[in-house]
Amino acid sequence: MIYFDNSATTLPLPEVLETYHKVNEQFFANPSSLHHLGSNAERLMDRTRQSIAQQLEVESGEIVFTSGGTEGNNLAIKGIALEHQSRGKHMITSQTEHPSVLEAFRGLEQLGFEITYVNVDDKGKVNPADIKRYIRYDTILISIMSVNNELGTIQPIEEIGQIASQYPKLYFHVDHVQGIGKIPLSLKRAKVDLCTLSGHKIHGLKGTGVLMVRQGIRIFPLFHGGGHEGNKRSGTENLPGMVAFAKALRLIKEKESNHMGGLKSIYHYFIEKLRDIDEIVINSSPEGAPHIINVSVPGVKPEVMIHVLADKEIFISSKSACSSKQPDVSSVLKACKLEQSVTTSALRISLSYQNTQVEVDQFINEFIKAVRYLKDKKGRY
Amino acid sequence: MIYFDNSATTLPLPEVLETYHKVNEQFFANPSSLHHLGSNAERLMDRTRQSIAQQLEVESGEIVFTSGGTEGNNLAIKGIALEHQSRGKHMITSQTEHPSVLEAFRGLEQLGFEITYVNVDDKGKVNPADIKRYIRYDTILISIMSVNNELGTIQPIEEIGQIASQYPKLYFHVDHVQGIGKIPLSLKRAKVDLCTLSGHKIHGLKGTGVLMVRQGIRIFPLFHGGGHEGNKRSGTENLPGMVAFAKALRLIKEKESNHMGGLKSIYHYFIEKLRDIDEIVINSSPEGAPHIINVSVPGVKPEVMIHVLADKEIFISSKSACSSKQPDVSSVLKACKLEQSVTTSALRISLSYQNTQVEVDQFINEFIKAVRYLKDKKGRY
Ligand SMILES: Cc1ncc(COP(=O)(O)O)c(C=O)c1O
Ligand SMILES: Cc1ncc(COP(=O)(O)O)c(C=O)c1O
Repeated sequence: MIYFDNSATTLPLPEVLETYHKVNEQFFANPSSLHHLGSNAERLMDRTRQSIAQQLEVESGEIVFTSGGTEGNNLAIKGIALEHQSRGKHMITSQTEHPSVLEAFRGLEQLGFEITYVNVDDKGKVNPADIKRYIRYDTILISIMSVNNELGTIQPIEEIGQIASQYPKLYFHVDHVQGIGKIPLSLKRAKVDLCTLSGHKIHGLKGTGVLMVRQGIRIFPLFHGGGHEGNKRSGTENLPGMVAFAKALRLIKEKESNHMGGLKSIYHYFIEKLRDIDEIVINSSPEGAPHIINVSVPGVKPEVMIHVLADKEIFISSKSACSSKQPDVSSVLKACKLEQSVTTSALRISLSYQNTQVEVDQFINEFIKAVRYLKDKKGRY
Repeated sequence: MIYFDNSATTLPLPEVLETYHKVNEQFFANPSSLHHLGSNAERLMDRTRQSIAQQLEVESGEIVFTSGGTEGNNLAIKGIALEHQSRGKHMITSQTEHPSVLEAFRGLEQLGFEITYVNVDDKGKVNPADIKRYIRYDTILISIMSVNNELGTIQPIEEIGQIASQYPKLYFHVDHVQGIGKIPLSLKRAKVDLCTLSGHKIHGLKGTGVLMVRQGIRIFPLFHGGGHEGNKRSGTENLPGMVAFAKALRLIKEKESNHMGGLKSIYHYFIEKLRDIDEIVINSSPEGAPHIINVSVPGVKPEVMIHVLADKEIFISSKSACSSKQPDVSSVLKACKLEQSVTTSALRISLSYQNTQVEVDQFINEFIKAVRYLKDKKGRY
């Protein structure tokens, strides 16, 4: 099996699963219980929070555990909107954000908020000057992703953070779900106020995630209740999931430190090989993140290509998994103003540190055969 | 170890953990991915949804997977409030609901909603006539729990459901987190529109849960995004957690069918033994749920008793775990208008099908010693 669908989800690491299992057995008590089973669980939770904070170079009080990236994005966006609406009801985002950001904003529009969706260029990049131009006296939030999930485009987060920081009451949220462990980002230097992470994109577990919220920033909780997570996200803590997240984060950060060179060289090798295929268009910029490659095979429906490759045990995606059941056109590529033949035939190849150059060679071999077969039904397959 | 803190959380069953592990290994793909790894995951998800629906005697399209009881309660309450506010902004609940219900309503008050908190009697019971009396033309939701988490009080859900059903545009939500597997409740007969369940209270996993939402009822999603869960709760599905929840639910339902007699006889035996202890007050009604016993030891601080018992490896709670870090007084017992000496010294003993009569005997033995020691510092300990 060649699994190149790592931006949809990743295979959980055995170590992470083992950790999860152990915590369930040994620390099953409710951290809020007053007896020592409870306080042992609470101590492990504190240590876990510290470990994550350290990895992200933030304070442990800034870590809010969530059930994943979608929750993190919604909590950040709606949490700021509902809490700070008396100060203003305008927010800025881009046209190529993940549905969990775009639809959260659409939901807020129903509640009377006004949203500006800034354009991107033909590689999916936001121009910080555009963002600056749209800031108004009543703008309370800017939300921009670090890495686009379909194209791999890296957004100029530091520049945008600099701009946002000039307005003391304007918060800056970054959806870093696809970026963590793959591109460098200092939350401090980029002056990020809220940052979303998801466990299952980094060989962690589904149903786990973190939202970083800078100390002192109030958000309206999506889950009210017992006051957990500094009153930002109530609910009995999923301690096994938290510890599993911390482990996955530590391991991906280790990979980033020690194996980024390897991933990048596979990525560039991959791009080179794809460039040799005349029938396809490479949509990703080579300056993009080192794990997402978007290509179009004009005239070939993505789902057909996906099935042909899957028959060979090669797994890739059309656009994002979240919207893959919707009609063919990719709204991200459309926002890049690419031609219809390209936006309706896009494929996403997404790598992890587990992939190898041998897999790339095997993929290219099968892909060329599939392209030629499907394009002109001439090749043998 | 004698674990009598099952209403705070339960020990996950080994079978449930094993299922979770297997699904992580064998069905890790994103159910939205178009290749067969994705569609295999999707099929398992569909089967899982059907299995849960069958257990609850509802339709599979009525199952919304959540991260737990707090999310379920918030999604039900805020989801109805935000979606149907144009029809009315009044809602009814009781004074003894779980914090995840009460605080969700307090949050809605901040957003301009008006909430009626009905009284309870001295056993924590709601009078359906009170609820009827408070219904107005602009009432859009009634939310009442099936079993109180501190007292074990069983609420008259069927009667309330009958009342609610006479108002076609008034929805009825039941927090069934403590009730499932422990008391009979037909969601159909009780005309329940929305019903919250949590995995970790039934020997399932933390971070898992279900909200049942009747077909055709629109709710404003807390998580917008890719449109998962019938557009009621977006986010990459936690398939291993879903399957684990289904397993835990099936197993607790089996216990309910086959071992309810055993649990009830332990419960009544327990109450009888407690009745013999002069120094304590039993706050729970013997008509309550067969797994929660609330007693007060006037003059003794709950946390002191909890620690004394924990030294003997016996684990119980003060009030609900969610609020155990707050000052001693139980707001549930206060709402029952019990004396201060009782509301400030309450202990919760909560059973599961795993507990035995031998454990009850051991508990009673240690408890009597602890009560006498702590009450008059005379006994030897
Ligand atoms: C950029 C981006 N943001 C957010 C999400 C949502 O995260 P999750 O799948 O954990 O809900 C995803 C993945 O689907 C993503 O790629
Ligand atoms: C009655 C009741 N409702 C809701 C909850 C919240 O559920 P969870 O712990 O899964 O968030 C609990 C448990 O804390 C409860 O006892």
